[in-house]
Amino acid sequence: MITSTGNQRVKDLVQLQKKSRIRNKEGVFIAEGLRIVREMSAERIKSLYVSESWWKKHKKETDGLGKKAEILSDAVFAYVSDTKTPQGILAVVRQMEYGFADITGEKKQKKAHILVLDNLQDPGNLGTIFRTAEAAGATGILLSSDCVDIYNPKVIRSTMGAICRIPFYYAEDLCAEIAKIKEKKIHVYAAHLNGRRFYDEEDYTKPCAFLIGNEGNGLRKEVEDCADCQVRIPMEGKAESLNAAVAAAVLMFETGRQRRKERKC
Amino acid sequence: MITSTGNQRVKDLVQLQKKSRIRNKEGVFIAEGLRIVREMSAERIKSLYVSESWWKKHKKETDGLGKKAEILSDAVFAYVSDTKTPQGILAVVRQMEYGFADITGEKKQKKAHILVLDNLQDPGNLGTIFRTAEAAGATGILLSSDCVDIYNPKVIRSTMGAICRIPFYYAEDLCAEIAKIKEKKIHVYAAHLNGRRFYDEEDYTKPCAFLIGNEGNGLRKEVEDCADCQVRIPMEGKAESLNAAVAAAVLMFETGRQRRKERKC
Repeated sequence: MITSTGNQRVKDLVQLQKKSRIRNKEGVFIAEGLRIVREMSAERIKSLYVSESWWKKHKKETDGLGKKAEILSDAVFAYVSDTKTPQGILAVVRQMEYGFADITGEKKQKKAHILVLDNLQDPGNLGTIFRTAEAAGATGILLSSDCVDIYNPKVIRSTMGAICRIPFYYAEDLCAEIAKIKEKKIHVYAAHLNGRRFYDEEDYTKPCAFLIGNEGNGLRKEVEDCADCQVRIPMEGKAESLNAAVAAAVLMFETGRQRRKERKC
Repeated sequence: MITSTGNQRVKDLVQLQKKSRIRNKEGVFIAEGLRIVREMSAERIKSLYVSESWWKKHKKETDGLGKKAEILSDAVFAYVSDTKTPQGILAVVRQMEYGFADITGEKKQKKAHILVLDNLQDPGNLGTIFRTAEAAGATGILLSSDCVDIYNPKVIRSTMGAICRIPFYYAEDLCAEIAKIKEKKIHVYAAHLNGRRFYDEEDYTKPCAFLIGNEGNGLRKEVEDCADCQVRIPMEGKAESLNAAVAAAVLMFETGRQRRKERKC
């Protein structure tokens, strides 16, 4: 059992919790809590840590996780945990490796329903968007390289597990990836305050992708220009914009609605 | 100019920022930033505070606010401010006093489109819901008395000004208020994971209200039982629920969509 916060493995875990640079260099992230750890395949889990109390009560729960758990004293576990009241189990997990054919739905023979995020900065928003995308039936998420890190512990938590289930990747050149989407005859819509057309006048039963911009500044001009069409979510009152996660939700659920309706007909 | 954090008025401001009990006892809240202060009518503003630097640059901006500004040294202003980089202006403002006829839209001859929040706890969610409700054209918001305080400085900020524009009140007895809504022939829908009907199969062109529950536990049984009908937002994947603000957004924008379509016909 590790009982000292000076232990090198403990120091490494803290670095992984705090620094995206270290996470990306090592190609791993920390999944905390039994539920999310269980969603990870045994090959994905590099190492497993539990608190002493957790181990005493739930030892058997680690069966089938494919890794021997390293036990940390409760104080040391609390020290490495990103939550105020840690459950007592976390795993160092290999980062996901998805590609273009994952996010378009091609691999699963699903009709494309893609979300493209340009410079999204709020961790809570990103987590909520992942959670919502899964529920709305999106096929995948493409992120600009300057979006907030999805492997940030707070973001992971707010995805409510969707991080394990919805394909995504960070694009080095976002416009180049959008061009690839368009080549596949997937219609690309930019959510825009000045869009000429209302979002609910478009046909999303066909393969489609939605561009969502930064919370304060919206889409960058060069990204916006990649779209086939700009759509506007009409707003009443003096509201000037919508929260990015809300805008994404409205578009994705409208897509879900239209596709359900089509299947019924 | 006030230069000491020991000053009684400064101490009072800090109490108002931090404690909902004090805010409610005095029937006021703090509006911070020029934009929101400007949205307040002169009669609503009880007192006005600016930082020394702000005063030097923007003195004229306080014209028309109807109150003489009290100047605080920059350090004292930063001390009372709830933001990391304070703009330099805040006002102590009387709390809103809306009633039943405000939230139903009756007073403005609008068709009812009400949101009812049961035990909502996340400040960011509540702010986003206010912002979204205004944009989606909701007529008002009814909150159970144990919802998070809308006058919490963080919630106010996240409403993006909607707090000044969308009618709302806290109900001492939520079920009694819902009964009043039903008496007005406003159809009451409960958003529920086990709802028998899909949300997009209902007719929201008629007066309607939506019940949204707590983030973790959903609607309380007794509140859920007040509804005329339970509706479900269908979810794909393994998603178990939606963020409360997202669920509210999907229902409110579906209402907006149906009503726009009806007006067009």
